[in-house]
Amino acid sequence: MSTLTQTGTTLGNYLLDSLQQEGITEIFGVPGDYNFTLLDTLEKYEGIGFVPARNELNAGYAADGYARIKGIAAMITTFGVGEMSACNAIAGAYSENVPIIHIVGTPKMQAQQGKKLMHHTLLDGDYDVFRRVYEPITAYTTVLTPENAMFEIPQAIHIAKTTGKPVYLMVAIDLVTQQVLQHTAEQQPLKTSESSLQAAINHARQLLEASENAVLLSDSTVLRQRWQEPARQLAEALNIPAASTMMGKSGFDESHARYIGMYSGAFGNQEVTETVENADTVIALGLIWSDTNTANFTAQLDMNKVINIQPQSVMIGEAVYQNIRGEDMISALIELGWMSMSSVPEMSFPYDEQKGQLEEPLNTSYYYPRFQQMIQENDIVITETGTLFYGMSQLRLPHQAMYIGQGGWQSIGYATPSTFGASIAAPDRRVLLFTGEGSMQLTVQELSSMLEYGCKPIIFVLNNGGYTIEKYLNVKEEVAKQTYNEIPVWNYTQLISTFGREAYTARVTTNGELDEAIRQAEQEQQHRLCLIEMIAGDPMDAPDYMKKIREFMQEQEKQQ
Amino acid sequence: MSTLTQTGTTLGNYLLDSLQQEGITEIFGVPGDYNFTLLDTLEKYEGIGFVPARNELNAGYAADGYARIKGIAAMITTFGVGEMSACNAIAGAYSENVPIIHIVGTPKMQAQQGKKLMHHTLLDGDYDVFRRVYEPITAYTTVLTPENAMFEIPQAIHIAKTTGKPVYLMVAIDLVTQQVLQHTAEQQPLKTSESSLQAAINHARQLLEASENAVLLSDSTVLRQRWQEPARQLAEALNIPAASTMMGKSGFDESHARYIGMYSGAFGNQEVTETVENADTVIALGLIWSDTNTANFTAQLDMNKVINIQPQSVMIGEAVYQNIRGEDMISALIELGWMSMSSVPEMSFPYDEQKGQLEEPLNTSYYYPRFQQMIQENDIVITETGTLFYGMSQLRLPHQAMYIGQGGWQSIGYATPSTFGASIAAPDRRVLLFTGEGSMQLTVQELSSMLEYGCKPIIFVLNNGGYTIEKYLNVKEEVAKQTYNEIPVWNYTQLISTFGREAYTARVTTNGELDEAIRQAEQEQQHRLCLIEMIAGDPMDAPDYMKKIREFMQEQEKQQ
Repeated sequence: MSTLTQTGTTLGNYLLDSLQQEGITEIFGVPGDYNFTLLDTLEKYEGIGFVPARNELNAGYAADGYARIKGIAAMITTFGVGEMSACNAIAGAYSENVPIIHIVGTPKMQAQQGKKLMHHTLLDGDYDVFRRVYEPITAYTTVLTPENAMFEIPQAIHIAKTTGKPVYLMVAIDLVTQQVLQHTAEQQPLKTSESSLQAAINHARQLLEASENAVLLSDSTVLRQRWQEPARQLAEALNIPAASTMMGKSGFDESHARYIGMYSGAFGNQEVTETVENADTVIALGLIWSDTNTANFTAQLDMNKVINIQPQSVMIGEAVYQNIRGEDMISALIELGWMSMSSVPEMSFPYDEQKGQLEEPLNTSYYYPRFQQMIQENDIVITETGTLFYGMSQLRLPHQAMYIGQGGWQSIGYATPSTFGASIAAPDRRVLLFTGEGSMQLTVQELSSMLEYGCKPIIFVLNNGGYTIEKYLNVKEEVAKQTYNEIPVWNYTQLISTFGREAYTARVTTNGELDEAIRQAEQEQQHRLCLIEMIAGDPMDAPDYMKKIREFMQEQEKQQ
Repeated sequence: MSTLTQTGTTLGNYLLDSLQQEGITEIFGVPGDYNFTLLDTLEKYEGIGFVPARNELNAGYAADGYARIKGIAAMITTFGVGEMSACNAIAGAYSENVPIIHIVGTPKMQAQQGKKLMHHTLLDGDYDVFRRVYEPITAYTTVLTPENAMFEIPQAIHIAKTTGKPVYLMVAIDLVTQQVLQHTAEQQPLKTSESSLQAAINHARQLLEASENAVLLSDSTVLRQRWQEPARQLAEALNIPAASTMMGKSGFDESHARYIGMYSGAFGNQEVTETVENADTVIALGLIWSDTNTANFTAQLDMNKVINIQPQSVMIGEAVYQNIRGEDMISALIELGWMSMSSVPEMSFPYDEQKGQLEEPLNTSYYYPRFQQMIQENDIVITETGTLFYGMSQLRLPHQAMYIGQGGWQSIGYATPSTFGASIAAPDRRVLLFTGEGSMQLTVQELSSMLEYGCKPIIFVLNNGGYTIEKYLNVKEEVAKQTYNEIPVWNYTQLISTFGREAYTARVTTNGELDEAIRQAEQEQQHRLCLIEMIAGDPMDAPDYMKKIREFMQEQEKQQ
């Protein structure tokens, strides 16, 4: 016997209600004939707008940028042809712990049940196949019906929030307008196990009581779980220095007196490396031991001295304490009353000092310090994968500046659409995009969306004549022979008028021209989008960090 | 005990040798740090060139266009971030029966075996996850090693060729340069079972001997299996009229005296519909009963009178005869000696007659006949999904003109990169692209690749102010309220100089201007790419076929 009752709410409206409760005010996507009822419902819905992207991959990237700012995002695509273009964005969100609700409109139930050979299918009557494609790259997949929607939608959103991963919902075009049936199950947020927390705290206390030079190490979890404030309080209460990882950049306030810089094994600032590696205890917030974070595994950290606080567990050496909300562990550490007696060392930062003359061709030793200088409190700084990513990672950012980049997934093309998403998410904040020209070509059409929606980021396009990062990373073959790393030479500033709009643009070749263009853009940005094309004086000019990566890889190659 | 022996050939070279044997002279793709050894091997290899696309989805679409002309194509992407962008192109190739060898470069074996958290992964140590994503949308997936390469590579290529579907090969970056080990297994092509063929022919003979007005119905299999010549011979030997389906367009020579037009149920030419539906026997070549082919299932064909010849089987009514090569069945039918006594009806074609005045705003009743007039023997005609697809499908094409479109998958954005692939595959043939501006925005960067490679297609961009096809297909909501079907207004002719190159461009608003631009482009095309932007006089102007679809859907809507 069913206890389901009619609710008077359609599936589509119930879905939108649920998303609105999470603070979602825009949904990205691309229209298609299997998502019309979803879009028509959205068109009439108060409080959430549809924001079309130029293609589905870009919609996914935009949703990712949006979610990093607002905590969660949603995207609507159409069956087969739409959703299959977004796989990279969703897999990237999985890798980077960004919750996106991916909603796919599917053919009518009658067509599906009759296994009709509809367009946008594999023409084999299999309507489950794309869900199976998404299964390995999402935390949850489900097929919505009026009967299960009131259970499945809250469940999927709950999983997205607790895992920090994307989830995937399918709904047939003709079910969107049907009434959902009442269902009473409620999602319970994770509760910390008191006994587990007590055991973890006892273990941590033992380490800290014997500690003389503990440090805090802040990773990307701080950004995704919004632990910025607890992280700061923890460093202050314990009186310990704080470093960040590359993937965690900007999670710990970089303007704070306790911030010592980025920990990056053999490639980063060696003072920071020594401070972290010589510490007798490391309190890590969501540490991910990836190649990016560890400077190709040159980092040397004895895990026995690491207290690693994850969103739902704590690891100390080999011991895993389950069912602990990370925030609760941080609070408990603050309340412990332990405090370091050491003083926080004074550190220098790689780009504090500006070098080079204004009339010189553009070069890294000038422009990274110049970027550091220009970035203001509350700015959103988005950096594309490429040589720029390694240079920008070494900047010291001001208070509440937020840094967005794909430290793990590193999909070139991500940053331009993500800038669109971030601009939609935070219309009142200044958004800065730093991208190489090679990456920008992959997803360039999203510049058009930004212009269309009146977004006003300042966009720096570093034109260094191809995929410079790839030339650095391929140490087996001479750079001159890597013709596949060359790309067409575009007129980047002309993109604006080609996309039918206007903006402030500049094309700069010297340090002085960049300086002047930045000054100008800072004025113009209040009124319109700004795009500055930077012609690199030397195509192989790259930040020191990048050079160290290459030297390391060459050394490895020799040893083989 | 292993019987494997060293061969002196590296895995990379063996792979390229195998592809070259299939006639592949170009491989599409995008570089990435996990495919460097593949690209370096390719760079040094004689006889196959690497053709980079601006992103991986576009590379996949280009490979699809290439394969439709040369029979098979290959693509190289990088692990995770590269391959995940190409899912749509590969799923599309699966749906449309286009064999593509998708080769993915993966991290070093040591990193994989150690489950290291490398960039471009989901950061969970799972190196099999992307293969699992590809499993549902390919005919075969495999992980290459020096030990299995000489078995797995021929096997994968064999499966791609026999199924006509894409396959997926992964190879670790450090294994590409290792020597493959000898392996002796050989792939056997399908051999027709004589008894099965005899039974099928006996069954067919019964139908034909009682037949008075048999017809031939040619579907996309004719294009993919290259049955154009056998199809023509069959119609001639049996003295029967031949129609094509929408997905099969241009497989049967449309200039042939026996060609009667396209069979499209209630939406197409009703003379053709009657001829096919009143036939007492239909010899179908690879018939696919999809919504596109059947005009939303308005087609009425009694399957008991259909002899459906597939690549590896024959179906007659409910009977399935396995293990028959389609070519062998066609030959056997030709040799049967049966011949129809009916005469082939004289048919008119929808766009034989040009209507409208030169000074009128551009409209469909003028430009479709003008397109029919301009298309020459041997042209490759590529049409994007959209209203144009339905109009172009009704043109009568000259001898050996080849028509390319995604009749089943219908992924907007496909046609522009596919035109790049086709231009690379057939540098000596004239390539014509017909696309809407909405679709072009999704994959516009491949125009840059065409310019870069000196491709010289004539590109028609129909600018009708948004996704007009979607406006036609959404019958539930007023067109004016479908704001999501609006798109940014670009300057399409300016794309050329923005992409740093030059071309012949024109922007036309009247029938006469189009006429003149075509005349001009036909001269210019010998030297350079041509792009003609067509401003539709009325954004909702569409071919009759499209109007019939809408009327049908409105009728259906009323009945619900």
